[in-house]
Amino acid sequence: MPRERSARADRRSSRTGGVRQLDWRTVRNPYRPIEVLTEDQIELIHDASLRILETTGMDFLHPEATALLEAHGAAVDGERVRFDREMVTELVAGAPASFTMHARNPAHHVTVGGNETVFCTVASAPNSSSLDGGRRVGNFADYQDFLRLGQSFNIIHAFGGYPVEPVDLPPETRHLQALSAFVTLTDKVFHAYALGRRRIVDALEIVRIGRGITRDQLATEPSLFTIVNTSSPLRLDGPMIEGLIEMAKMNQVVVITPFTLSGAMAPASIAGALAQQNAEALAAIAFTQLVGPGSPVVYGGFTSNVDMRSGSPAFGTPEYTRAALAGGQLARRYGLPYRSSNANAANAVDAQAAYESQMSLWGAVMGHANLVMHGAGWMEGGLVASFEKFVVDIEMLQMMSEFLTPLVVDDAELAVDAIAQVGPGGHFFGSPHTLERYESAFYSPIVSDWQNFEAWNLGGARTTVERAHDLYRKVLADYETPPLDDSIRAELDDFVGRRLDGGSA
Amino acid sequence: MPRERSARADRRSSRTGGVRQLDWRTVRNPYRPIEVLTEDQIELIHDASLRILETTGMDFLHPEATALLEAHGAAVDGERVRFDREMVTELVAGAPASFTMHARNPAHHVTVGGNETVFCTVASAPNSSSLDGGRRVGNFADYQDFLRLGQSFNIIHAFGGYPVEPVDLPPETRHLQALSAFVTLTDKVFHAYALGRRRIVDALEIVRIGRGITRDQLATEPSLFTIVNTSSPLRLDGPMIEGLIEMAKMNQVVVITPFTLSGAMAPASIAGALAQQNAEALAAIAFTQLVGPGSPVVYGGFTSNVDMRSGSPAFGTPEYTRAALAGGQLARRYGLPYRSSNANAANAVDAQAAYESQMSLWGAVMGHANLVMHGAGWMEGGLVASFEKFVVDIEMLQMMSEFLTPLVVDDAELAVDAIAQVGPGGHFFGSPHTLERYESAFYSPIVSDWQNFEAWNLGGARTTVERAHDLYRKVLADYETPPLDDSIRAELDDFVGRRLDGGSA
Repeated sequence: MPRERSARADRRSSRTGGVRQLDWRTVRNPYRPIEVLTEDQIELIHDASLRILETTGMDFLHPEATALLEAHGAAVDGERVRFDREMVTELVAGAPASFTMHARNPAHHVTVGGNETVFCTVASAPNSSSLDGGRRVGNFADYQDFLRLGQSFNIIHAFGGYPVEPVDLPPETRHLQALSAFVTLTDKVFHAYALGRRRIVDALEIVRIGRGITRDQLATEPSLFTIVNTSSPLRLDGPMIEGLIEMAKMNQVVVITPFTLSGAMAPASIAGALAQQNAEALAAIAFTQLVGPGSPVVYGGFTSNVDMRSGSPAFGTPEYTRAALAGGQLARRYGLPYRSSNANAANAVDAQAAYESQMSLWGAVMGHANLVMHGAGWMEGGLVASFEKFVVDIEMLQMMSEFLTPLVVDDAELAVDAIAQVGPGGHFFGSPHTLERYESAFYSPIVSDWQNFEAWNLGGARTTVERAHDLYRKVLADYETPPLDDSIRAELDDFVGRRLDGGSA
Repeated sequence: MPRERSARADRRSSRTGGVRQLDWRTVRNPYRPIEVLTEDQIELIHDASLRILETTGMDFLHPEATALLEAHGAAVDGERVRFDREMVTELVAGAPASFTMHARNPAHHVTVGGNETVFCTVASAPNSSSLDGGRRVGNFADYQDFLRLGQSFNIIHAFGGYPVEPVDLPPETRHLQALSAFVTLTDKVFHAYALGRRRIVDALEIVRIGRGITRDQLATEPSLFTIVNTSSPLRLDGPMIEGLIEMAKMNQVVVITPFTLSGAMAPASIAGALAQQNAEALAAIAFTQLVGPGSPVVYGGFTSNVDMRSGSPAFGTPEYTRAALAGGQLARRYGLPYRSSNANAANAVDAQAAYESQMSLWGAVMGHANLVMHGAGWMEGGLVASFEKFVVDIEMLQMMSEFLTPLVVDDAELAVDAIAQVGPGGHFFGSPHTLERYESAFYSPIVSDWQNFEAWNLGGARTTVERAHDLYRKVLADYETPPLDDSIRAELDDFVGRRLDGGSA
C-alpha cells in the first residue's frame, strides 16, 4: 500500500518544461463551495434580475438579434429588448451543465462543469512587462513567449485570449497570425475574440485545421471558446453579437461575462451589481440558446468595485471576493458552468499583487469556478501581462491545486506505529515512514524560497519577482514546440496565406 | 432605510491612530467552515490519537503533573503517562466552548469561541526588521513600537506574546518590564509566557493591577492567556507545566499548541501529523482540566511541513492550509475554541510573504479559528517581526474582516429602480443611488495603491513594502497612549520596582 501511494505521489510532479513542476492534471474541487448568500438572497437577486429584464430590458445592438428575439416572443422596441421571465428561464434551462472543450492534443481536453476547474492564462492585456524590458506596448514576440510559457506550465489548461495584444501586427489580419500561433506553439484549448463575424469564422477554420477534423466533427466537439462581455449596463454590442451567433451556431463555447463594475457600470452596491450581472448574463445566455439550442455556454462573473474617490477599478477586494462567490451560487442555481478570474489592480509584482490575486483566487476556487480566466500573468486591472507575475501565479495555482487534493487518512498515513517507534522526544527525520515519503510527501514550490535568512542573504537577497524573472527566462530557454503534423501545418499556412492575401477561406 | 444603512456604514471606518482604518469590531464568521475531512476521517484521526495516548503515551516533565495524573487514574511510568481514552474524553468534555477574555479597557473584551475571530499580533520573534533599520536582534524599543502599532490598529484585538523578544532587557526580570509595557502602552488583552511558576505569578499580578480588580475577580474573569507548546513529539516541558498549572488554577486561558512540523517533529504525512497534534492537544487539555476544572482552554493547530530536501520549516503551504482547516474540524468535534496562525516562511515582504500569509489566513478564517496568532508582522517562519509586514497584514486582516461581513440584499441594495433610471448604456457615477453610498459603499484600503501606472510611476513607483514603511512610521508618530489611572500606574510601578529589586510580590 505505501508503495502504491508512493508511486502515485511520485508521478505528481516531474521535471518538464525546464522546471520541476506538477504534472498535467484535472483539477477537481472536493470541498463544498463557500456560500455568501442565503437561499432567500439568491432568489431575491434572481427575481430582481428578471424584473430588470421585464421592465427596463436590454439593448441588443444588431438587427439579427432583435429580429430573432422578437420572433421568439420578446418585446422589441428598436434595439431595446424586454423579456418575459418564462422565456428567459426556459431558454437558460436548455443550456448544458457540463461539456468538454477539445484541444488538438487529446491529452489536453478539458471538462467545463461539475466540480472541475480549468485554469487559463492572462488575456487581452494591451501592454506587457518584465523586469529587464520594463513596461511596453504589447507585441508579437512577447505574445509568442506567453504562449510558450502557457504551453510549458502544466497547471495552465487553456488560453483565455491573447495574453497580450500583438499591436505590431496589422489589426485587420492580426487574428490570423495570433490564432495560428496557438496551433503551432501550443496544443491546448484556446479562445478567439467575438469581434465581428469574419474573425470568428476564421478562428473556427483555424481550430478545425489544427485539430485535423471536419466541420461536422467540430460542430459536435466544442473546441474554441469566446468571452462575450456585455457593455454594462444592459447592452450587447454588434460585433460581439455577430461573433456569438457564429459560435453558437457551430456549437462552440460562449462565455457570457457582464462587466459590472460596481459604482461605475453597475450600482454602488454589491447586491445591485449582482442583480444587474445576473440580468445581463441571463439575457445573453438565453439569446445564445435561441441561436444554438443546447450549445455550450458559461455564466461569467466579473463584478468588482471602483475606488469611489478616484473612479479607478479595483480587484481582489473584499467586495470582489464576495461577488465571485455569490456568482458561483447564481450559476449553480441555473445549472450552468461558472467563470471567474485571478484579478488584481497592482502596478508591481509585490505583496499587493499577491494578496489581491489570492483574494480573487479563493473567490474563484471556493466559488467552484469551472473556468478561471487570467489565471497567470494579469496585472494593473488587466492593462499589463507580466512575465514575472505569470510565474508567481503558476506557483499560486499549483498550490491551489494541491490544496484541492483530498487528504488521505488510512493506517499508513495516520502513522500510529511510526509515532510509537519514534516515541516522545524523538524525531522523524530518519524514520522509515519518513524515508518512504521523502520525495513526494509535500508540495515542492517553483519560486518560493524557504532558505534561512543567512543563506538567502548570501545568495543575493533576491525577492520573489527576481526569482520569477530567472525562472521564466529558463522555461522559455527550455521550451519545446509540441509536435504538429506536417499536413496540418501546410493546411494552416495555406489558409492563413490566402486570407492574408485578402482571399476568402 | 438607506439613511440608516448609510449611517451604519459610515461608522465602519474612521480616521483613528493616524490612518483612516476600520473601527474596532467583533469579527464574526457567518459562513460555513471549509471542511477538508469527512466525518469518518475525523473519527479515524480521533481514534488514532487516543490509541497513541493509550499505547505510546506522552512525557510530562514535572513530578507535580505526573503525580496529579496518576492520582486521577493515568498509567504513569517515570515521566511517561499513558491515558485511558475515557479519562481523556471526559476531562476534555469539561472545558468551556466559549469564554470572554477581559481587557483593562472593557470595550476591548473579546469572546473566544463560537463564530468569533480574535486577531493577535506577531509573537515571540527573536529579531525585528524594518526597511530603514534592517534586520536586527530584538530590543525593547522595537518591542514598544510594536505594542504601539497593535494598540493603534483597531483590527488587532489582542497581543499574543512579545511581538519581538526584548533581548536588551535582563532575562530574569525581562517579563516584568515587558508585561508592564502591555498595561501602560495598550489597553487590549495580552499574553504571558508559561516559562516557570514565578513569571506567570508575576504576570497574573500585573494583569490584576492593570485591570484594577481583586484576585477573586480575576479568578472569575479570564484576563490573561498563555500559549503552551508541546515539545513534539509527545512531550510537555517542566517550565510550561508550571505555567500551565498556575494559569489553570487561576481560571486563566491556556492555549495548547502542539508544534507538529510534519517530517521533523511529526510524521511526514498530514494525517499522521494531525493524529499526533490531536493526541498532544487532548492530553494537555485533559491535564489542564484536571488542574482547573472548567478553566478556559483553546485547541491550537500549528501543523505544517518541512522542506524535505533541506529540513527548513515551511508555512502557508497547501499542506499547512489543509491542516489548519482540519484542525478546526477537530476542535469543533470536541466543542473547543480553535487557534490558528497567519504564517509564512518568506525572507522579504514581497509576493511570497503575501501569498503564503493568505494561504494561512484562509485556512485560519475558513477553519473558524477563534484565535488567530501572529496575525500581523510575522516573517521567516517566526524568526522576524517586521514592521512593514505588520502593515501589510493589517490590510489583509481588514480585508478578511470585510469579506466576513454578510451582503445586504434588500430593495435598496438591489437597486432595480436605480438601474431603471440609469438605463442601458448609462453610467452610475452621478446617480442618487451612488451618491448616497459615496463614502461607505466599499472597503477603503490602507496600503493598496489603485492609481493607474502613470500616476503611480510619477509618484515614485513605490512598492507595497515602501508604502507600508511610511504608514507604520506615521502611525507611530500619531500614537496616543491609552488613558491609565494614576493609582493603577503607581501600584504597577511599585510592584515592578519591588520585584526588580529582588523582592517578592
